[in-house]
Amino acid sequence: MNPRVAAISGSLIRQIASKKRESSIDLGLGEPTLAPNAAHFEAAMAYVRERGVRYTANAGDAELRAHIAAYYAYPGMTEAENVCVTVGSQEAMYVTLLTLLDPASDELLVVEPAFPSYLKMAALHGIAVRSVAMDEGEDFAIDGERIAAALTERTRAVVLCSPCNPTAQVVEREQADVLVRALERRGGSIALIHDEIYREQRFGERVDFARLYGNTIAVNSLSKSNALTGLRLGWVLAPAAFIEQATKVHAWAVSCADTFSQRVAVHVFESRTVEEHAAWYAKRRDDVVALLHHSGLRFVAPQGAFYALVRLPGGASSLESALALVERYDVVAIPGIAFGMSCEGWLRLSWVAPLDELREGLARIAALFSSGASEART
Amino acid sequence: MNPRVAAISGSLIRQIASKKRESSIDLGLGEPTLAPNAAHFEAAMAYVRERGVRYTANAGDAELRAHIAAYYAYPGMTEAENVCVTVGSQEAMYVTLLTLLDPASDELLVVEPAFPSYLKMAALHGIAVRSVAMDEGEDFAIDGERIAAALTERTRAVVLCSPCNPTAQVVEREQADVLVRALERRGGSIALIHDEIYREQRFGERVDFARLYGNTIAVNSLSKSNALTGLRLGWVLAPAAFIEQATKVHAWAVSCADTFSQRVAVHVFESRTVEEHAAWYAKRRDDVVALLHHSGLRFVAPQGAFYALVRLPGGASSLESALALVERYDVVAIPGIAFGMSCEGWLRLSWVAPLDELREGLARIAALFSSGASEART
Repeated sequence: MNPRVAAISGSLIRQIASKKRESSIDLGLGEPTLAPNAAHFEAAMAYVRERGVRYTANAGDAELRAHIAAYYAYPGMTEAENVCVTVGSQEAMYVTLLTLLDPASDELLVVEPAFPSYLKMAALHGIAVRSVAMDEGEDFAIDGERIAAALTERTRAVVLCSPCNPTAQVVEREQADVLVRALERRGGSIALIHDEIYREQRFGERVDFARLYGNTIAVNSLSKSNALTGLRLGWVLAPAAFIEQATKVHAWAVSCADTFSQRVAVHVFESRTVEEHAAWYAKRRDDVVALLHHSGLRFVAPQGAFYALVRLPGGASSLESALALVERYDVVAIPGIAFGMSCEGWLRLSWVAPLDELREGLARIAALFSSGASEART
Repeated sequence: MNPRVAAISGSLIRQIASKKRESSIDLGLGEPTLAPNAAHFEAAMAYVRERGVRYTANAGDAELRAHIAAYYAYPGMTEAENVCVTVGSQEAMYVTLLTLLDPASDELLVVEPAFPSYLKMAALHGIAVRSVAMDEGEDFAIDGERIAAALTERTRAVVLCSPCNPTAQVVEREQADVLVRALERRGGSIALIHDEIYREQRFGERVDFARLYGNTIAVNSLSKSNALTGLRLGWVLAPAAFIEQATKVHAWAVSCADTFSQRVAVHVFESRTVEEHAAWYAKRRDDVVALLHHSGLRFVAPQGAFYALVRLPGGASSLESALALVERYDVVAIPGIAFGMSCEGWLRLSWVAPLDELREGLARIAALFSSGASEART
């Protein structure tokens, strides 16, 4: 057995989520509750009825690749050759890390709190990782100077999620500029991997690193924007030379993405509906902030994505609290520790459940906190 | 950049296939030309209309996993926990190799001629590979004794495709027994990876290694059996302890397989249609053998899959011949060298094109051979 595989732990998020009961209030979900637009599926069905589901080229359906590049229109990345269509943004990130980093010499800098997959993928391939934690006292705001200060001689890539899972922070333009200037002082040789999967769920200015820094690799999908998580349709958008190499890894790992899913995606871009759910999230976000204020809990106001961090009472273990919450209060929430030590002491709540459930969930969390039960320590 | 990625070459098969013109006779195809059964898609659509496309568990939809295990009913592998649903059999093989082999110490034994992905995947992860070539003089028949003789102290796994791409040979029961006895003499610690993707295209006895040897890992998909190549739906079927480890690799590489595809697959198993195209292939195989006899070419009579190897005139390079064939005779065929040195001097023909095209393609190949042009050497 590969000892790196044996050493890797499973997903803490999935472990907590698996304790969900029929009756549970689910604030753990990392996926939209909106129904996907059936028109996208009907278009793909019409294609399949006529043409079956043949393999596409390894890098994806040429039409889809062109659509993706044209839609984002990032400088130097506007052609089909700048896109590799992948099995969700998860495979996009996997292929990117495996292509980019030489395990013998390179280091990956992860901006935390962060979705755990970056670290797991690196561990699977023996890639050295350094983490830089954003400041809890600043509500984990993305801090360009702090990231720049963590770069080392070995840093080959920085990975950053904005809008961020789990903090729901969005990088501000000024902070992005600080980071980009630091990367340019390093000659532009360090790749900036921008995980922009929550790009269409943001409630202020949008900052696309690919418009600011030439050595940006953007990783994205339709999972969150169009409620298509299970469709597994994502992509890497990057300079063509990188896509050429990344496509080799993609080809030998999975051959190509699903043709049916790719036709769904073609319809999304053709019908200009990438933002079809954006207004719903913007409206819901305001309602959620009002509920959070009313709950009396300390929270980080979401600037993007569909999460909110809430602070546990001092010293409480996030894992113990999440377990107590699901077992005794029937509420699923994700312990901050899943996103790195810097997020210990917090719970990540997803706010895509109906508002009534969210209100009730917050009341139960407040009840847990005031019961003192959450102060159990692991 | 990861030097292992930079060093890896692209797919020779895809390179030749990319030279195909509108007018070409395509005998290169590694995928069925039959249309898939629309009923499978309608069932998946009904599911999506009602329930959207949420993520499934990492290892796959529980219902699908149970169906797969029950259908094959391999001893000790009859439960959902014996199945990890993957992105086609390509990802199934990728996850299997990455989980099973420790690059620091283990060796993979590949039975050649072989589909090139096994070697590429191993190269990507620094896994040592030894090849054992079947005997051209015996039409590449799978030879248990020859495989057994190639095992070394470091061999941790043997990978073998039967029915075989590209030779169209199927292992005979007697030869399988010879190999299994040799593996048992090694204490059963060597895993036998049976790539059984052409399992429903066979024209004689079927031999499932998982019924003969406990440490078998079966890799399969619906791509060939049900003309669903582009759907990317495959699986690993193995002892539960292995599936638990493999699921971690699968989870961090792609999260889970496509939910829509998984519902298509549920319908295939529920409607007991895994063999819906088997009779077509059996009938076609007889017609193809007659055409091959008529062509005057030396060929390997297919026992399974939908390929036939034809022998080039002495000394001709398979790559040069394939290039000459597509450029001057407008026929796509795959050079044997793509499947290892042991297959040099042969072309792999796929016989899923209409019979008229196949007849015409064979005539043009015979014309190329008699022109002497195929004797160019690289």
